[in-house]
Amino acid sequence: MAVYTEVSDDEVERFVAAYDIGEVIALKGIAEGVENSNYLLQTAKGSYILTLYEKRVARADLPFFLGLMEHLAAKGLPCPTPIAARDGRTLRELHKRPAAIISFLRGMWPRRILVTHCAQVGEALARLHLAVADFSLHRANALALPGWRQLYQSCRTRADEVQPGLAEEIKRELDELAAQWPEGLPQGVIHADLFPDNVFFLGDKLSGLIDYYFACNEILAYDLGICLNAWCFENDDSFNATKARALVRGYTKTRPVSPGEIAALPVLARGSALRFLLTRLYDWLHHPAGAFVKPKDPLEYLKKLRFHRSVKSAAAYGL
Amino acid sequence: MAVYTEVSDDEVERFVAAYDIGEVIALKGIAEGVENSNYLLQTAKGSYILTLYEKRVARADLPFFLGLMEHLAAKGLPCPTPIAARDGRTLRELHKRPAAIISFLRGMWPRRILVTHCAQVGEALARLHLAVADFSLHRANALALPGWRQLYQSCRTRADEVQPGLAEEIKRELDELAAQWPEGLPQGVIHADLFPDNVFFLGDKLSGLIDYYFACNEILAYDLGICLNAWCFENDDSFNATKARALVRGYTKTRPVSPGEIAALPVLARGSALRFLLTRLYDWLHHPAGAFVKPKDPLEYLKKLRFHRSVKSAAAYGL
Repeated sequence: MAVYTEVSDDEVERFVAAYDIGEVIALKGIAEGVENSNYLLQTAKGSYILTLYEKRVARADLPFFLGLMEHLAAKGLPCPTPIAARDGRTLRELHKRPAAIISFLRGMWPRRILVTHCAQVGEALARLHLAVADFSLHRANALALPGWRQLYQSCRTRADEVQPGLAEEIKRELDELAAQWPEGLPQGVIHADLFPDNVFFLGDKLSGLIDYYFACNEILAYDLGICLNAWCFENDDSFNATKARALVRGYTKTRPVSPGEIAALPVLARGSALRFLLTRLYDWLHHPAGAFVKPKDPLEYLKKLRFHRSVKSAAAYGL
Repeated sequence: MAVYTEVSDDEVERFVAAYDIGEVIALKGIAEGVENSNYLLQTAKGSYILTLYEKRVARADLPFFLGLMEHLAAKGLPCPTPIAARDGRTLRELHKRPAAIISFLRGMWPRRILVTHCAQVGEALARLHLAVADFSLHRANALALPGWRQLYQSCRTRADEVQPGLAEEIKRELDELAAQWPEGLPQGVIHADLFPDNVFFLGDKLSGLIDYYFACNEILAYDLGICLNAWCFENDDSFNATKARALVRGYTKTRPVSPGEIAALPVLARGSALRFLLTRLYDWLHHPAGAFVKPKDPLEYLKKLRFHRSVKSAAAYGL
């Protein structure tokens, strides 16, 4: 849940008047998303999401994110698309913050993950990776190995407060991943945060992929590693191989993967687990007292990381 | 913003299937309201509010609250009305909590208060007071003088942490209000929490009165005292007599008040300021570290209380 920017009713009415979407009927702050302030905006013409970009999202990245959504929506992916105001601009300003109105997607994110969800997520991820082939903008992945090292440095002295030995284990993992990180694999724009709360289903059918604010250029199969972590572990941190197989097969039937990508999957999944372990650890150690956002448990990702370290090959994921 | 109960998508779909409101299209947690978990529910037939009642609201009171909303909506007030399921019930259960689906009201609550808002709120409050004349249920006001004394007792030893001398000032105020509290004034069901975030406007016109979860039987003019506190002070805590006059005249043109009610208004407004001072003070001193809800400043209401104490007669409010 975001720390909200409270916008006034007349500010919103003036803002919306610059679009061809009718008069404002209702505006409700949404208790989802932690990076930005999101409102569900209802007008005479329908429902929209109004997003105010808070300082955790760099202004310079906004054309990439909005352009990516436009690109994906134009390719037919079930992706929210930025709405242009009458002046043609999608990125405007509200309450001294960058702001955009984005189309509303129907559906709910699944609180209880089923195998069919995993299969459809795999397929949708592959479609996304194919669709970005001709997307021209570029954004470096700030949360790759050098970024992980920085996070480790800023958590190193206090990591053992969370679990004794954690700092040493992370350091060893960073060294091993640096030595083993694959080179020469297909790259492109990845979603980088395709967790269940970013995927909508209407009934049993995937209806939306949202939240592109971590998207960046990276090894494509790394995104599959993120999804294995996000979708295929149960609440008790056990790995569900049936879900993994469904996810991976959903992906590979749409975008066939090379032997190199298959071989690299365990190390990519380890890297992805380490990335979420580190950001969660950072938030855990640095979150201010009384903050609105409750930090997530970093140790969930230590368990996932250890699982992937124990894996002998991508056969464990159904490949 | 509420501490949310997270309901699963399949639970909600099963719950909604018991109503004649079509299939679920979307469900978003709303970042408003602190007592309950509120979701904006969109179905094939329209928009609704799905409320899960959390433990701060007593189950035994729910028939009163839902019955009141039905009663007011039936009388034509712009009030959300509970939707009955096919079995005729409005109060049902979801995720082991009492839950209800309530009609959706268009409009936004005003972040910047104008005189016209105050005039319309006064009139709507009077209409509400007239409309409850034949409402048969009864709910005692837990936040009247005896309740204030209890709150004072549980804050007494720590009140001076917030401001030196606060405990003594509250004690003196309680004694004075007990001595001066009016008797024999017209009573009925009051809203008791008609703050700006509980009143919607569509353009400049009042379109909704929401949140009946503090409603109770009380002196009707006390509700006017609450609204004077909620609507007629500026952000710098100065009193805006023009807004007060508009509020009071909006009220009295719809429900004429007796000389006794007029004379009692300053003491009722003082009591109402003390009520919010005490509940805010309690929340301030007792709110758990890391809670999601940021407590509101109690001293805002100390300033309002002192203003009403300085008032010589209801003439200060435009009467």
